[in-house]
Formats: sequence, structure tokens, C-alpha cells
Amino acid sequence: MTNLKEKHQSALDAAIKALHERKFFTLYPENPSPEIYGETADKEGRDKYKTYLNNNFAELLQENPEKWVGQEDSPYTQEKLGVKYPYFSTETLISRAENAFHQWRKVSPTDRAAVLVESLERLKSRFFDIAYATMHTTGQAYMMSFQASGPHAADRALEALAAGFEEQTRFPNQTEWEKPMGKYNLKLNKIWVAVPKGISLVIGCSTFPTWNTVPGMYASLVTGNPVIIKPHPKAVLPIAIVIAEVQKVLQENGFDPNICQLAVDAEDHLITKELAENPKVKLIDYTGGTTFGNYVESLPGKTVFTEKAGVNSIILDSMTDLDKVAQNLAFSVTLYSGQMCTAPQNFFIPETGVMVNGENVPYETVAQKLAEAVTGLVNNPKAGPHVLGAIQNVATSDRVKDMAAMKGKSVLDSCQIQNPMFHEARTCSPVIYEVNAEDKEVYSKELFGPIVLLIKTKNTDESIALAKEMAMEHGAISCGAYTTDAAVKEKIMDEMSLAGTPVSFNLTGGIYVNQNAGFSDFHVTGGNPAGNASFTNPEFVIKRFTWVGFREPIVG
Amino acid sequence: MTNLKEKHQSALDAAIKALHERKFFTLYPENPSPEIYGETADKEGRDKYKTYLNNNFAELLQENPEKWVGQEDSPYTQEKLGVKYPYFSTETLISRAENAFHQWRKVSPTDRAAVLVESLERLKSRFFDIAYATMHTTGQAYMMSFQASGPHAADRALEALAAGFEEQTRFPNQTEWEKPMGKYNLKLNKIWVAVPKGISLVIGCSTFPTWNTVPGMYASLVTGNPVIIKPHPKAVLPIAIVIAEVQKVLQENGFDPNICQLAVDAEDHLITKELAENPKVKLIDYTGGTTFGNYVESLPGKTVFTEKAGVNSIILDSMTDLDKVAQNLAFSVTLYSGQMCTAPQNFFIPETGVMVNGENVPYETVAQKLAEAVTGLVNNPKAGPHVLGAIQNVATSDRVKDMAAMKGKSVLDSCQIQNPMFHEARTCSPVIYEVNAEDKEVYSKELFGPIVLLIKTKNTDESIALAKEMAMEHGAISCGAYTTDAAVKEKIMDEMSLAGTPVSFNLTGGIYVNQNAGFSDFHVTGGNPAGNASFTNPEFVIKRFTWVGFREPIVG
Repeated sequence: MTNLKEKHQSALDAAIKALHERKFFTLYPENPSPEIYGETADKEGRDKYKTYLNNNFAELLQENPEKWVGQEDSPYTQEKLGVKYPYFSTETLISRAENAFHQWRKVSPTDRAAVLVESLERLKSRFFDIAYATMHTTGQAYMMSFQASGPHAADRALEALAAGFEEQTRFPNQTEWEKPMGKYNLKLNKIWVAVPKGISLVIGCSTFPTWNTVPGMYASLVTGNPVIIKPHPKAVLPIAIVIAEVQKVLQENGFDPNICQLAVDAEDHLITKELAENPKVKLIDYTGGTTFGNYVESLPGKTVFTEKAGVNSIILDSMTDLDKVAQNLAFSVTLYSGQMCTAPQNFFIPETGVMVNGENVPYETVAQKLAEAVTGLVNNPKAGPHVLGAIQNVATSDRVKDMAAMKGKSVLDSCQIQNPMFHEARTCSPVIYEVNAEDKEVYSKELFGPIVLLIKTKNTDESIALAKEMAMEHGAISCGAYTTDAAVKEKIMDEMSLAGTPVSFNLTGGIYVNQNAGFSDFHVTGGNPAGNASFTNPEFVIKRFTWVGFREPIVG
Repeated sequence: MTNLKEKHQSALDAAIKALHERKFFTLYPENPSPEIYGETADKEGRDKYKTYLNNNFAELLQENPEKWVGQEDSPYTQEKLGVKYPYFSTETLISRAENAFHQWRKVSPTDRAAVLVESLERLKSRFFDIAYATMHTTGQAYMMSFQASGPHAADRALEALAAGFEEQTRFPNQTEWEKPMGKYNLKLNKIWVAVPKGISLVIGCSTFPTWNTVPGMYASLVTGNPVIIKPHPKAVLPIAIVIAEVQKVLQENGFDPNICQLAVDAEDHLITKELAENPKVKLIDYTGGTTFGNYVESLPGKTVFTEKAGVNSIILDSMTDLDKVAQNLAFSVTLYSGQMCTAPQNFFIPETGVMVNGENVPYETVAQKLAEAVTGLVNNPKAGPHVLGAIQNVATSDRVKDMAAMKGKSVLDSCQIQNPMFHEARTCSPVIYEVNAEDKEVYSKELFGPIVLLIKTKNTDESIALAKEMAMEHGAISCGAYTTDAAVKEKIMDEMSLAGTPVSFNLTGGIYVNQNAGFSDFHVTGGNPAGNASFTNPEFVIKRFTWVGFREPIVG
């Protein structure tokens, strides 16, 4: 422990500093290059991934499973992975977590943080294994699989654990309180303890199985709460590898590996609700659809952190280079086939067109440029397949097909894009539909996947009003806006701030509205129906423990 | 504004420092002495109070009331005060708050803090007016009325506003983010705004009309939310004076006084639920009974801060001086006739007695000493009436009378204590009942008022287990424990920490379990059913605003 504290002190200090400066900071290089990760790292990761297929996942330190279960299949091969995970009843999971709680809660925040940073360090050697596991469960392309599930997730975990460590050390453990009473001074010795709330449940999603899971997991762990991680049944392997590494580090340092448990559904028995409703579960982190998210938020006696669905907007007003804008937006909607919670969906464009370098460009031209940019990107064999990836869930590709029956005019049809490496890959490139501003029933919900709606508005004021309304009523996680007019920009900032929605202005080139940087961009604000939590603001960690004080007179 | 900022910067800095050191700190002297507050301050306050009686309260800057209403009466004279307050419909209050919101939210946290510290400074000149107003609405004795409603409340307000200011300035307003991309650096300008959530409703209680109201009020105000304060209809005057001072300072500095509004019930029309359920009300602070508190907590789409009822325990195990312990506890149960949320109710005493200086003292002796200490205190004409005060609500004195019908054995009957200044005062001294540990239905609820239950347990382990169970299931705001055994102390700390309950150990002399010091003791932990909020931890302020970020590429 002493070694781990010394080993990781500078990383922890740097992370806390980064949280407050909010400048560029990362501890885990996002480039999967051999120079950084070693010549053989990629091949070893791919080989390691293959050893998991059609096998029991035996790395976890959770003893005596009732059975082995698994139901993943690859969006790239459309075949079963055949990985089986140990299944435990809710009773077993809760009772092990409760035992572990009484050990873990007594460990100091400093020691907890040291163990957890060490676990991230170990994870670094598994980034490529996790990348292939992520590709073949989520359908993400290789690069995103590596970055999002590996270094970016590790940075987000470090961010949450740094924030949790900082909050637990913001008040003194002990102080002498001395009140002048005239003839004498009243002296009390005071002690404060950050008491963890209890068993924490983290419910994962199918598209970002580690990135969306590790912040809540590490936030709960650093604040002394044992965690049960319940991944989506279709995306278990990436987070199972993470949990295995955490368990090994816990055990090596003399702690109960059940401080961090994997919980999986059996095919005939889903356990999420059982776990969530168990009175001993005090904290729940959830990423996924709105209906289940609302259910989780409604559970009494729980502290709940959610990321649900949102309806993200693009506001097009004025710009200097329409082609660059169209290319940037085409990339944003194509990236992972629109299966990101930050992907834009509703494009608000004035029916009178936009201003480009002071000249009016008609609405139709804007629509055409966007369609051309998407077509150009998806049909570029060197780019298209590697940006699109594959469709995680067949319901998503079905949704795209169903759009044909929708009110609105098709601007660009979807086409299947052949993946050069995986001929069976489930792919779907973005479709673009045109909708009138009045047809709110079409665009006032999340249409998850590669679906873009061009919404004709009277003018930018109406665009802003509708983007704000959508965010306030249906949630939003991102917003992109293009304007060269300072007053319009000011108005967008003001209105979207009231809708709790971050705005990226005038993005072109290699930065996209979908992207959020750890230690700098707060991910989800918690200020609209898209979710009640934010990676990582202080609220995300301080709600996981309670300050309790003790005091006693100092005699003499 | 510049003047105010300079004037109050050092107070604000000192308050933030105090929050983190948690040593003794106060900005407002608690001693109502002429040397501090001036020779004539007390008399002027009493005279000022008299001018309010049977009059319209005309100090508020809320225009065009629909009517004038009031329903307060003095627990000391049992006569109507006859003070009338301006009544407004919910629609008017909400619409004025919304207008004010769009002004106040754009004011910087620094400017808001300066204006609010100034308002506390003004309040200082009203401490004596407020003291008399508090006496004759709550029944508190003079000294408590002055201290709790004046300096202690102002300190708690300063604490909340300092915490709110600090949290809003913990992250930068703006930074340049620069990511190395190999051949070039990607540069973004980033801006963050702490966006206030919206209209804030603060619902007051009848016993501590300013102390329990100002923390939520100042926390909301400093974070940019307009506040509607809805006091208990029987205790309006103290907080009306506070609001009037805030409104004057707002107006003097060019702000809409409706940023801080008083809302009162008409006798035939209670408006609390209407206000609480209004969708534009986003924040609610509540102090009062559990039933209404649970209703407020259940309202969807609101961020709610509550202090409800609790069942506070005393654990008697071992001590060095039983008489001093009995005197200390007698004072705690007599102070304001047990009408404090921190007053102890359940005294857990082993049936085998307690250890005093290593010698066993039988249970019966402990009970007798407690009864004698209470009797001695309440019958001391120089102390009794001034510690007891009067009973705010006739339901409280009725509850004491009803105890006679309860399961259990009477150890000390209540008697009416004559108040030398107010012969009509509604008084009630503490009653003591003996209950067996098995009779949980008697002691597992708050019996508000001067009611003490002595609960015979098998041993201290059972005492601890029951105190913990009561706190976890029914809430607790304080706990007192007497033990000279280090292992027992450790166990009490550990078990009560899991019940989110602060513990005061071995208090004797001039410090009582009921007392909580601003800037040092967190009041209510939020970790058990007695309430979900704490004065003032970071959670109490950060949930009142949302961090929203904006970013844009830096060109060139």
C-alpha cells in the first residue's frame, strides 16, 4: 500500500489539478501505436480476445458460480461470441457486497485511491484485449473501440476517482474547536468521517460498455462503496476484463475482490430490477434508454445517477465555409453510425437559407451539401467503413428502414456499406429526412442510430427556440451551432444554458460535436431530461457519501 | 457594487476559510450585550416590535397586494399579534419571480455574494426587533430568540452563501484547451457557466423561523435563483423583517426586490402546495413535519432539501460524574421545552445500571437523578422560565398531557411553570416516562416537545443497536453518548456513522447536544430519514445550479 501511494501520488495530484484547470490532460495515450504500446500489443490483444471465444471467462475472483451464461454476438460477424460468465443470484451478490462493504468502508480514501489508480495502470496492459472485445460487442470500429473503451475510459475513471478523493479530503478529519466564553474557553475535539452510503449498482449500456460504466464504478469505489456492475447482456466482455483487473489488484493488496463484482443476467432471468430494488442497494448509476432510466430514478431510498436519451440539435445560421461545415457534420452523423449519445439528430435550418461569408445560400443547397458530404464520406473505402463501424442492435437498422414510412421527405437514403474485413457486418449509413418545424411529433424524440432530420424553420430565432424546447422537454447531451454573428452566438449560449445543454460553436476540421474530453468537458450536465448526472462534477461524487461529525470536550 | 465587493471581501474570504478549517468562527456576536450592540438596542428592538402589532407590515417592496392577512399569536400572551402581511396569488408570485430570475441569473456570483453579505450586515441592526418577533411567535425565551434568530441565523446564512460562492468559483470561467495532434495542435476556447436552476421555494417552520430558513434562502440567492419564502403562518414576522432588509439592499443596488419574495397563506387559502407543485419552481427547501416533508421530496422535477423529524437518542454507558451528566441532560431536554430538532428524546439505559467511576450505579438511581435534575432546573426561578420559554403550539402541550395514557411508567410529571413576565404563557416542563426496550411502538417516533423516554435495555450493545435502528428507520439529527470505555466509544461512532447521525460524547458543563455551531458542525447529515440536506456541505449548494460548457475553435 505504501508503495502504491508513493507510486501514484503524482498521477493523482496531476488529475486533481487538471480537474480544476480543465485544460488538455490525459494519462493514457489515445494513439494505439506500436511506439507507445509495443510492437506486439495489437496482435497479442487480438489473440487474447480469441482465447475468450466459446470459453468460460475464468479471470474473475468471484467464487462458486451457480452456472455459466452468455448471450453476446458480434455485429461484425453476426455470430455468437460464446463467452460464458459466472452467474450469481441477487442474494449472493448482495450478501458478498455487504461483507465487502464493512472492509472497504474502513480503508482510508488515500489507500482506496492508490489501489484504484493501480488498477487503471494494469488496465493499460489490457487496452488491446478490451478494444477487440468492444468491437465485437458494440460494433464500434477498431479506432473508437481502442480509444473509447481503453484510454478515454481510463481517463474518465481517473477523473471520477480524483474528484472523489478530493471531495473526501476537502474537510479536516479532526480539529480542535475553541470558543471564547468570557471567563474560560470551551474546547471540543471534533472528528469528521465521510461515510460511504452502501452498496452501489452500476448498470451498463450496449454501446459504450466501459466508457459509460467506469466513472460511476470508480466514483463509488473511491468513496468506499462496494460496486456490483451489471453490464448490458450484449456487451459484457469489455467490462468483465476491467473488473477482473480491479479484483486482482484488490486481492493482491489484501482486500476482498467482492468489493467489485460482475453481475450478469441469465437468459431466462434478468436481474437488474431485482438488484435495483434491493433495499441494501443505496447508489445506482445507469446508462441507457429513457423508460428504464425513469424507472430507476423513481426508486425510493436510492441515490441515482442517470444518462438517458437526448435529442441533440445542430443550429445552422451563418458560416464562412459551407463545405467544411458539411464535412464536419457528415463525420459527426456517420461516426459509429450515429450510435453515440452525443451524435446530432435535429438540424435546424432556416427555410430562407443560411449566410455564407455574407451571401445567402438557399436551404436546398445546404441540404444538398450535407447529403453530398455524407455520401462522399461513407463511399470513401479508406474512410467510410472505419468511421461507420457496425450497428450494435438490429432494432437500430430496423428503425432506419422504418423511417421510409415517416412523415417527411427523404433527402438521402441509407445504403449498406460493405466492410472490407467483415463481409457479414451489420452496417447502415446515415439517412437524411426533411421535416417541417410544425411536425414536432417526428423530431421530438431520440431516433437512435444514423438518422438525420433537417428541420425547416422560419429563421434562426425559431431554430434556437425549438432546439431549446427539445432539450428542456426531451433532453440533450450536445448541441452544435454555426454562426458568425456575435449576438446570435450570445443568444444561443443564453438559451441553451437554460436548457442545460453544452454548445460547440463553429466546429470544422478534426474536432466534432460528439467528442467530449475527460478533465475538461463535463459530459451530460444533469440539467435536462437526458440525465441527472455529469462526468465529473462534484455532485457526481459527493452524493456517494455522508459527512458525519463526532465531538467531545477536551478535558483540562 | 464595487464598494460592496471591497467592503465584504474579507468577510467572505474568512467565511470560506472557516468552512474548511471548521474551527470556531462567527461574524455576528451572540451576546446581546449593550457593549456590543449599543445601550439602546434592546429597548429600540422591543419598541419596534410593538409598532408591528395590529398593523400592516409595510416594509416589504412587493407591490399591489391582493389583501392583507395574518394569523400569528404569542405563546407568551396567548393573544393575537394582529400583524398583517401582503397576500399575493401563486400566479403573481411565480410571474414576479420569473421576471426577477432573468435579471438575477446574469449577475456574477461575486456581485451576488457582495449584495447578500451587505444584507446580513443590515440585518445586524435588526437583531433585537427579530428577537422580540421570534419570542412572540415561537415561544422561545429571550436569549434563544436573540441568538438563534439573529447572530446564529446570520452566521448560518453567511456559511451557505460562502459555500455557494466557493462552489461557483471552483472551476474556471474560461480556458484555452490545446491538444497535441502530431503535426498541429487543436485549440479550443472553452467557457463554463454555473446556470441557476430557477425559482426556489423555501418553506419555513413555526419554531425556528429564521435559523432554518436563511440557509436555503441564501444558498439559492447566491447561486442566482430567485426565492419565494413561505413561512409557517404562525411565525411570519421574524423572517418578514429579514426579507424586507434583503429587498431594500437589492433595490438600492439596482436589482428587482422580487428576487426575494415573502409568500403568506390566507386563512382560507393555503398556498404551499400550489407553490411547490408549480412546474416553474425547481428548488424547494423545507423544514417541518415528516408527512409534508415526504410529500415535498416526492414531487417530480424538483431538487429538494429537507429537514424533517427525528428520534434523537442518548446512550448512557459509563461516566465519571453522574450528577454533572444529569444536569447537562436536564438542560438539553428543558431548553425551549424540547421543541428543538436536536433535543434528545430516547434515553437508552442498561437495566443493570451504568458505571460511574468504575462503580455500578443502578438504573433506578440514574432515572431518579435525571428526574431530580430536571425538577431542580425548572423550579429554579432564576433559570427555569428562561430556559423553558413557552410552548409554540397547543398541540405540543396536548401531546404531553396525552402521554399519561401511554404504555410506560411515569417517572416525572409535567407541571406548568409560571413565567414571571408573562402570566398567560403556555408553558410545559419536561415529563419523563419509563419504557421497556420491547415497546418500540412507543419510542419509535418523534414525540415533539418536552417528552423524555427512559428505555431500559439489556446492556449498552442493545442501547447502541436500538439508537442506530431508530436513526436509520425514523431519522435522527443528534445523539449524545456517555462512556469512558474507548472500545464502546469506537463502536458507537462506527454504528452511528452508518446511521448518518453525529454523536456528542461526554458533554457536561456549558455545552449541550442540542447545540450546533455554524462553520463547524454540519447540521443534519442528509444520511437518514430526518432529512436529505445538511447545513452546509457542498451538496447543499451545488445542487442549485448546473455547469454548462461552451467551446469554439481558436482560429489561427
